[in-house]
Amino acid sequence: MTPLPTSMFAIVQTHHGYSGKATGPSIQNASDWLAETEMPVPEPGAGQVLIRLRASSVNPSDLHFIKGEYGQPRVKGSPAGFEGCGDVVATGAGAEGLQGQRVAFMATHSGAWAEYALTDAQMCIPLRPDISDDDGSAQIVNPMTAMAMVDLARQAGDAFIVSAATSQLGKLMCSLGRDLGLKPIAIVRRAETVAALKELGAHEVLVTSDPDMLQKFSALSKELKPRVFLDAVADQISEQIFCAMPNGARWVCYGKLSPELPKLTQTGQLIFMGKKIEGFWLTQWMTATPREDVVRVVAEVQARFADGRWKTDVSEKLTLKNVMSGLVDALQKSDGKVIITP
Amino acid sequence: MTPLPTSMFAIVQTHHGYSGKATGPSIQNASDWLAETEMPVPEPGAGQVLIRLRASSVNPSDLHFIKGEYGQPRVKGSPAGFEGCGDVVATGAGAEGLQGQRVAFMATHSGAWAEYALTDAQMCIPLRPDISDDDGSAQIVNPMTAMAMVDLARQAGDAFIVSAATSQLGKLMCSLGRDLGLKPIAIVRRAETVAALKELGAHEVLVTSDPDMLQKFSALSKELKPRVFLDAVADQISEQIFCAMPNGARWVCYGKLSPELPKLTQTGQLIFMGKKIEGFWLTQWMTATPREDVVRVVAEVQARFADGRWKTDVSEKLTLKNVMSGLVDALQKSDGKVIITP
Repeated sequence: MTPLPTSMFAIVQTHHGYSGKATGPSIQNASDWLAETEMPVPEPGAGQVLIRLRASSVNPSDLHFIKGEYGQPRVKGSPAGFEGCGDVVATGAGAEGLQGQRVAFMATHSGAWAEYALTDAQMCIPLRPDISDDDGSAQIVNPMTAMAMVDLARQAGDAFIVSAATSQLGKLMCSLGRDLGLKPIAIVRRAETVAALKELGAHEVLVTSDPDMLQKFSALSKELKPRVFLDAVADQISEQIFCAMPNGARWVCYGKLSPELPKLTQTGQLIFMGKKIEGFWLTQWMTATPREDVVRVVAEVQARFADGRWKTDVSEKLTLKNVMSGLVDALQKSDGKVIITP
Repeated sequence: MTPLPTSMFAIVQTHHGYSGKATGPSIQNASDWLAETEMPVPEPGAGQVLIRLRASSVNPSDLHFIKGEYGQPRVKGSPAGFEGCGDVVATGAGAEGLQGQRVAFMATHSGAWAEYALTDAQMCIPLRPDISDDDGSAQIVNPMTAMAMVDLARQAGDAFIVSAATSQLGKLMCSLGRDLGLKPIAIVRRAETVAALKELGAHEVLVTSDPDMLQKFSALSKELKPRVFLDAVADQISEQIFCAMPNGARWVCYGKLSPELPKLTQTGQLIFMGKKIEGFWLTQWMTATPREDVVRVVAEVQARFADGRWKTDVSEKLTLKNVMSGLVDALQKSDGKVIITP
């Protein structure tokens, strides 16, 4: 066995804690939030594993996080990146079973945008050999969120609404919804994406730039009675969609792509119509959901990637050394994931 | 038995349906929304009762309703007024058991601001003889809402927040909370009400005009961990209180005293903190709650009024003939109910 190096290349956070702002998951300059560095390879403690990176993905939550707008505080000097896949090369007490395995992981102790990441054994999912590294690097955040949220929608009825439907997560939810016999109503910004989304599984697609969008939604809402709105945007249009939904509807925010702060224009929707506004966070879902249900969902996710029902659309690949110079441009390309490799 | 008259004096709605606005429960001129008229005394159908009015009360929901901002549409020419007490003087098939009884009622078919009101038998509560007509006229909307909402708060913990705490309903909730061993945190607009509210049962009282109010609330929130906010105001201060509440908190809107439309400034509160925004409507609660639980709550409400733990503070009494000229001025007097008598 090759001995591990003592130092590694990493893209690290340059700020500490929370920003107290909510400006959304976009960045102008990588150097506002990130820096490259050589740093010691971390050592796994009890229950932890060290992973040599194969590929990591860039999610909106990564951008929220490095900007200090996520559900946990930044640690200055610690590698960024929540999600990746790689090989377990060292293990702490109690985690020996994972030694040598290729895993998808969520990085809880030292981030995924580095040559080595450190996380808890329970945040690792061993990968089937027929899952590619690219798919493996985006196996948890989006696919698990899609499974959990569509399940939540299914419990409330046939039809549900997905905003930002051209995002990787939006597409997963549209196709999963169709496969389950449900009726996903997709909300998008650009008309040129409509056909592809319908092909993928959306029952209807509405375009926010269409001046008649809300009128069309109202008619659809009366017909299909969608009771769950899975929303990554959380702007005023989201609020108006919520107001046009039927009795008992739930506006489930799981992201905040828009910096606009939506006004609650109709308190009566809450009082008289029994509607609710709430959130969804995968981390919380993973904690609150019984282990056997999580395992079942993990297996279903891998099966969908293995047989091609789901795939990760890659918009650009960057090596770690190209992140600082290339990340902002890579993120401009829509409709796919940016993947980072060592 | 004296035969019933064929016509009656009534204060009727002058608009139809919904206004589509949300301007709050205040009126400048009674004649913008109401008119006095002589009209036929309604006749009870199956399951209905005709009630000769003793007293009716004016609730914020009555004002929301006549302005077209409530959960059910106006009917032009039909009497206004949701709540009152009186004597059942005629009954339809199946409602004969209530004949001759003095009842508190919610008017579902012909409103309470009239010499006679028509409602469903199931919307009537026979009154104990030791309950006064004044208390009887405000026996349902506020007391039942207080009981139901404090029960909801109790299920979530010791401490809860009550806005507009000087309202009749706010006072009922503070005293009920204290009696149940809970810690009501009262939010008020004016400092001069603090002592009286503490006397009545509020554990702490915060004044919205105090520039340090939110800071004080944050400290209180960390100490007492209130998880339910019973809110009749729904303005930006309400939203900020919600943001300062602990994990898992629920903002329960049951009224809309402020015309301000609050912005959702921190989507992360929903996503990462597991918080929810929802509503409470007594009508929905009465429908969804098992009959035996409603009966238990009714008995407890009457017991509290009978032994003096609760009372209706009357700010002014108006006869039906004085409503058009006197209602607006009477509503200016704070901290008590306006009662209407025949």
